[in-house]
Order: sequence, then structure tokens, then C-alpha cells
Amino acid sequence: MTKIILHGCNGRMGQMLTGLLKEDPEAEVAAGVDGYTGIANEYPVFASIDECDVPADVVIDFSNAKAADGLLDYCVRTKTPVVLCTTGLSEEQLAKVEEAAKETAVLKSANMSLGINLLMKLLKEAAPTLAAAGFDIEIVEKHHNQKLDAPSGTALALADAINEASDGAYHYVYDRSQERKKRESSEIGISAVRGGTIVGDHDVIFAGTDEVITFEHRAYSRAVFGKGAIQAAKFLAGKPAGRYDMSDVIG
Amino acid sequence: MTKIILHGCNGRMGQMLTGLLKEDPEAEVAAGVDGYTGIANEYPVFASIDECDVPADVVIDFSNAKAADGLLDYCVRTKTPVVLCTTGLSEEQLAKVEEAAKETAVLKSANMSLGINLLMKLLKEAAPTLAAAGFDIEIVEKHHNQKLDAPSGTALALADAINEASDGAYHYVYDRSQERKKRESSEIGISAVRGGTIVGDHDVIFAGTDEVITFEHRAYSRAVFGKGAIQAAKFLAGKPAGRYDMSDVIG
Amino acid sequence: MTKIILHGCNGRMGQMLTGLLKEDPEAEVAAGVDGYTGIANEYPVFASIDECDVPADVVIDFSNAKAADGLLDYCVRTKTPVVLCTTGLSEEQLAKVEEAAKETAVLKSANMSLGINLLMKLLKEAAPTLAAAGFDIEIVEKHHNQKLDAPSGTALALADAINEASDGAYHYVYDRSQERKKRESSEIGISAVRGGTIVGDHDVIFAGTDEVITFEHRAYSRAVFGKGAIQAAKFLAGKPAGRYDMSDVIG
Amino acid sequence: MTKIILHGCNGRMGQMLTGLLKEDPEAEVAAGVDGYTGIANEYPVFASIDECDVPADVVIDFSNAKAADGLLDYCVRTKTPVVLCTTGLSEEQLAKVEEAAKETAVLKSANMSLGINLLMKLLKEAAPTLAAAGFDIEIVEKHHNQKLDAPSGTALALADAINEASDGAYHYVYDRSQERKKRESSEIGISAVRGGTIVGDHDVIFAGTDEVITFEHRAYSRAVFGKGAIQAAKFLAGKPAGRYDMSDVIG
Repeated sequence: MTKIILHGCNGRMGQMLTGLLKEDPEAEVAAGVDGYTGIANEYPVFASIDECDVPADVVIDFSNAKAADGLLDYCVRTKTPVVLCTTGLSEEQLAKVEEAAKETAVLKSANMSLGINLLMKLLKEAAPTLAAAGFDIEIVEKHHNQKLDAPSGTALALADAINEASDGAYHYVYDRSQERKKRESSEIGISAVRGGTIVGDHDVIFAGTDEVITFEHRAYSRAVFGKGAIQAAKFLAGKPAGRYDMSDVIG
Repeated sequence: MTKIILHGCNGRMGQMLTGLLKEDPEAEVAAGVDGYTGIANEYPVFASIDECDVPADVVIDFSNAKAADGLLDYCVRTKTPVVLCTTGLSEEQLAKVEEAAKETAVLKSANMSLGINLLMKLLKEAAPTLAAAGFDIEIVEKHHNQKLDAPSGTALALADAINEASDGAYHYVYDRSQERKKRESSEIGISAVRGGTIVGDHDVIFAGTDEVITFEHRAYSRAVFGKGAIQAAKFLAGKPAGRYDMSDVIG
Repeated sequence: MTKIILHGCNGRMGQMLTGLLKEDPEAEVAAGVDGYTGIANEYPVFASIDECDVPADVVIDFSNAKAADGLLDYCVRTKTPVVLCTTGLSEEQLAKVEEAAKETAVLKSANMSLGINLLMKLLKEAAPTLAAAGFDIEIVEKHHNQKLDAPSGTALALADAINEASDGAYHYVYDRSQERKKRESSEIGISAVRGGTIVGDHDVIFAGTDEVITFEHRAYSRAVFGKGAIQAAKFLAGKPAGRYDMSDVIG
Repeated sequence: MTKIILHGCNGRMGQMLTGLLKEDPEAEVAAGVDGYTGIANEYPVFASIDECDVPADVVIDFSNAKAADGLLDYCVRTKTPVVLCTTGLSEEQLAKVEEAAKETAVLKSANMSLGINLLMKLLKEAAPTLAAAGFDIEIVEKHHNQKLDAPSGTALALADAINEASDGAYHYVYDRSQERKKRESSEIGISAVRGGTIVGDHDVIFAGTDEVITFEHRAYSRAVFGKGAIQAAKFLAGKPAGRYDMSDVIG
């Protein structure tokens, strides 16, 4: 039974994980951490990770960037592996993540869903072949109307995966309305659609001569991110120090 | 039998129309006009419309903006109806189109395909209802990698159709990568994807709470524009002076 | 404040409606009815509608076909309008629904979502025009792997809407693997895809010469059906006897 | 310069290849074969392959099943490699293809497009991983209204590729309208949509818990099949006897 500390247990994702873990025969919440303590959980909740004295095999973090420094210090000090799902970390914090990974196991991914990570793995392989055959690459992502950033971190991660597999051959284009010019083959156009409550759609489009191949991922609920985080936590418990990502989890 | 002058008969669209009209039992090419005269056609070809002395019921124009002034003068002088498919007209030329329409029948549309024009008609009706029900509106268009302008004239025409039916409630957004902010309900986001030889895809997306409706149009060949132009020419022959568009043709 | 009896209050849809109505400033649950009484609700729950003595403006029914007869008797006797969302009614029960509608307001729809019903309304208008222009009509629906029936009631309702608007010109084709023959223009092909937890996707495809128009609806959660039912209930409260459907609600 | 015999040179695909090869700097038509000789080509045309005495590096065949026996005899006798694009061969003929491959190089694929063959290669890898993660597999194909067979040979080839990579774990389901039952995880549902002039769309859908991944291929013109055949012919010229397919060509 993997014992988990839920860092950010009373937010939307934290409560979803609470629900998912209640049903999980292989993992359970040992303790929660949240600045807001107004929710009655079946596990002890601490206002900050420093106060938490319950031992655990792994931490899942869905809190926020402000709490990341304290969390990393804790994980290094107690040698507890951590699944980092918080986004928007500063450059300093990202460097601190790398430092922490020398002392404990750290897993960080732009998107925790199994499907996106499988897709990313496939794209690394397929993109260079398709590009060599003359296919142009474009990404369209769609998210709900409350999302602040555009394009999504996942769209950028997909583009980066393709770009790394292609020795950095591409640059990204977010807007074509300001210029009159033909597309260059070194472009990856990335378009961000916003509307309603769309959880997260990502299309990676390879457009060739008279044929188009599209790799399409649709998330229907945020539970896919929660499930991926739990799968990652089970994988990470007991692993040696180092930097991990979801591609390690899906093998 | 509708007798047609093909203005721009030796360009790509002109030659396609030549082929389509060869098979058409109800219409035929009376004469062609083209600065380039290196193609042997089965009809007489003149270097400019001024030299053309063959009477006709209607002109179909797929030439270029430079030739538009001469063409409009000719149509006014001879009272010949004209289907204008040339894009990129200047403000002065657009004003001249309006003037010409006082003297002869002039049909001008951003997109000559039957499908797009039927879609535009439906959108005028559906958009206000869907918007009132809280649906956000976004447009994604996809075209080949040689296209110079973005977004496409058709995407803008679709947005304009929605906006006019909504008393101008919307403004258009082409790029979301430069700001961190929530989407406003008064936005219509318009994204332009470029790649390969895509003839022209247009998606009009209505994203609501937990449901999304998409109106999707795919063109598989430029022949759809040629066929629409011929249908428009047959309609326009014999009509009184005035400004027409494809919505008149499809009834 | 519209007072509602939730018939089938302890099933999955009943509990979702309970949650949605808790937040609704214009409607509330007056009482629930359910054979299973193991859930603690904030409103009184009766084991059958006959035992319910709480007055209400309207009933929303998400129970099952077995309970439909008792429900219809109650609604006729007490002149209470009813939104019937139960599927799988027998021929006798459907006749009883028609009888009941002579005495009280009855609303019944194959799909309660706003989006599908708006789409259905548009299709009635668009289909005859598109068919006259030579477009072939096909429907593809996708649902989760637990769904027993295929094609979905909604896909059939979409096909019926098109067929009624076309004076019954179409017959439906569910399988093309057993014959070698060209498609007839009088066919509406209906394909059923099953997999994962897909809530309900419906594509209505109009395929013409070198162009395809698709009307696409995606549901992301069952809440869209609950919200539509509540909207229908508010509409139906106080209405005279008669048969209604969602097209009346959306105006 | 690869010298090619075009077997079936005066059919629709033969004429398209004639056009494509005219522009090709690396390959040319040495001779054509066609029972119909009413078209003036720039290369010699023979009524049957037996009469052809022009030496060539490779044959591309887009004729019909009736002509296949004579063609295979010729290729064995003259040790000429052959790209077989004719479909609908009988069991006997398929056996004869295998025999011929012992004497000369024979390449045969259900679909000659680069894109479909790249997709097939990816699917062989991705399908077992996705299936192990609980994703259900479905295929939807769309073709024009003149196509006689359903589902398409390409859809079956995609399903076979997945099935072979999964040790035959799947059976195919073409119709779900005749039974009321839940989907089994061992099913691959294959749906065939027919309409208009659709060249060939194939969607391979992996539907999981709250997420769906779709691999989508759209052909915009038959030229993609012609180009693939030419690429295959260049590859096959000079190769030793044996059975090849497009996966050998794309490496």
C-alpha cells in the first residue's frame, strides 16, 4: 500500500485525488497539507508541509508555485519522492527542482494524462519521418474560457518533443494575421482556441501533399490528470534520486 | 444556353472553368480574356476586355485586382452582369464596385462554394440563439502553405456574418500568446493553420457548458469554387442592376 | 421558485439534478421519489409516487420504464406537468403518454441537451436544401462501452428530424459490410462507435461534390442532460395540457 | 532514370501516373499496356503485356483483376519487379502472387499513400500499449458514394496491423444495430461512411477512461496513391525476388 501525502489536498484537484484514492486498493492518503483547512477529510491535514510529521512513501503536489520551495526543502530533507503537478514555477524554482532531484526522486510533467504522454512518445518517433517526407507540422489546442495562459503548457510540450527529436529544426508561430507571407517549413504553428468548459483538446497536424495526418487527444474530465498523478506516485515510491517524467511511468 | 465571358481564362481557375463549362449543357464560353495568350482554347481569347467584341450574357472574373477597373467599366458600358471572384480589391475599387452595381448586376462573394454559403446562412440564424444560451464562438481555418494572407477571407466573412446577426457584439482575436487573461464572451477567436496543400477547411465552434457544437466545412478541390461561380453566372444572367451575393443564388 | 418532484431521485441522474438544483435560484426540489431510500437527501423521499403528498409545480422523471405507468397516473390525477426523460418505454406506454398529454402538460425528448435540440432545429431547415444540392447524409454517433443499444436514440431522432423535413425520402442503413453496391441517395447511413467513457458524440455529415459539411455535437458530461431537464421543467410549470418537446423550450 | 511499364495506362489512375511521371526527373514511362487504346500517349502502348517488347526496370499495375495472371507470368518470365495496385484478386491469384515473389520482386499494399503506411507502422507500436492501458479500439472510414465494397481494404489493413501486433486478440464488428449488449474489449468496431466524392478518410480511435486519442488520415486526391506507387517503383527496381510492401519503402 503506497502511502501518499497530498500537498494541496483541499483544492479542486486535491479533492478529486482524495476521491480517487478512497477507491484505490494499492494506495492511500497518509496526510494532507493545505493552507485552507475548512474541509473535513478522513486523513490528518496540516497547514504547511513543515508541520507534517506523518511518514509517507511519496508526495503528490497540486498546490501552487508559492508553496513549492517549502515542499522541495521537505522532500530533500526527508528523502521523500515527489510528483510535482504545480505549473508556473519561476526560473529559480525550476533550478531548485533540478537541485532537489540530486537528493530525491522528482517527477514533473506538463500534462499528467496517460494519453498525452503516450502521444508525446509516438510523436518523437513519427515527426522526423513525416517531416522528411515533406509534411508541415501545426498544433491546435482548445481549452475552457477561464484559462489564463495560451498556448497551453501541453501544446508547448508537444511542440518541444517534436523539436527535440528534430535537432531544434523548428521555431513556433502563434499569430499569422500581421504578415503577408508563405509558411516556412521550419515553422510549427500553434493555435489556442478558448471557449466554454473544454477540459483540454490537442491536435497535432501533419499536412502533406494531398494528405493530412492528425493525432488528436481529447480529455473529457480532469480525472485523467488525477489518475496519471496516482499512477506516477505508485511508480516513484522507492525510486532512487533523479529527475523522472511520465515517459518513465508508461515505459 | 448562358453565354459567358471568362475574364482571366488562362489562369488556374480560368482553365478549370473552361473544363467545367465544356461539360455543361446549360452554359458555354463565348470568349476569354487574358494578358497571357499562350494557351490554345476552343473559344476566342482577347488580351484585354476592351478588345472583346463578342456579346455575352454574363462575365465570370477570376483575374486579378489590376484588371478590375477595366472590367467594371466594360460591364457598366455594355450592361453585362458580372460575377466578381477576384480578391484583394482596394478601397477605391470596392467603391467602384458599388457604383457599377447601380448600372448592372454585380455578384461578389468571399467564397464561391455552395457549402460555405449555405453554412453562412445557417450561422446567421443559429449564432444569436447559441450565444444567448452562453456558447462562446471560435473559428479555425486551415489552408495550404502557399497562402499569403491569414486569416482567410472566408473565415472573416463567417465571423462578419455572425457579428452582423448579433448587432456587432463581437471583436476578433487572432493571437492569445501575448496576454495572460480569461476569454471575454465578446471575443470571436480566429485561428489560421497553414500546411501542405489543404484546399480550405473552416470550423465554426460554439463551446458551451459541457457541450460543444461545431459547424465544419471541408473543400476537397478548387472545383467547388468554379462550380459555384458557374451557378452564380447562370443566376445572374438577365438580372436587373444591383448588388448580389451567393445567398441570393442559393435562395 | 419552481417546485419540482424528482422522480428517480437516488439514481445517478437524480443525484446530479439534486446537486444542480441546490445551486439554482429559480427552482428547488419539493420531494423525491425512489424505490431505493438509502441516500440522505435534504428533501423528503417517498418509495413511490402514490405515497407522495407534497404539492409541486412539475415532475422531472429520470427513473425507469417500470415506474412510468404509476407516474403518468399521478400526473393526470393531480394535473401536474411532467418532463419525461426515461427511455425504453413500450408501445403501450407511449400510447399512455399521448393520453396523459390530453390532461396535463407532458414534455418528452430523446435528448435533453440544449445543444442537440438546437442542432435538430437547424437540421430540419438545412437538410432539404443540402439534399436538393446533391449532398448525401450520414450520421456517426459515439458512446461509452457500457451502452446497450445502437444506434443511440439521439442519432435516430436526428435522422427522423431530417427525414420528416424531407417528406420521408430516406431509409436508414446500419451496415454496409454484407453487400457490394453503390450508395443510394435515399440512404441515411447511421454508424455507432463504442468505446471508453464517451458521454455522447453525434456527427451529421453532408457529403457533396468535393466538399463536406459536418454538424458535430460533443457532450463532455451528463450534466448537460440534467441542465436541459431543469430548463424544461421551469418552462413546463403552469403550461396547459399538451405534448411538448425541447424545441418548444428553446423557442 | 527508372524505366517503368504502366500496366493499365489508359485508366484514371494510369493517366494520372502518366502526368506525374512527365514531371519526374528520376523516372519515366518506357511503355504502356491497356486494352483500350483510344488515348494518344507520348510512349508506345500495347494491347496486352505479352505484346510488349520494351525493356523496363519495373512495372506499375493499376489495371484490373482479369489482367493480373498475364502480368504475373510476364514479370516472372522477364524477371521484372512489379508494384501491384490492383485490388479484388481471387484466392488463386493471391497464391500466384506468392509464387511469383519467389522469382521476382513483388510489392503489394492495400493503400499506396505514404501517410497511411506511416500510420500503419505507428499503430503496430502504439496499439498494444494503449490496449494494455484499457483503451478500446474503433475504426471509422469514409469514402465516396460510388465505392462498392465496405469497409475499405485500407480500414481492414489498419485493423489487421493492430490485430497482428496484438497476437490476434481482436475480432471485428461491422454492425451493432441487431443486438442489445455491452461492447467487449476484444472488439474492433469498423464503421463505413459513404457520401459525395470523399477520396478516403480513416480514423483509428482509442477510447479510454475520460480521454480519447484519434489517429486521423485524410486523402485530398487520388494523386497520393499515384505518388506512393512511383516511390515504390523506384525502390523496387533492382531489388532481389521477394514479397515487399510499403513499409519497406518508407524504411
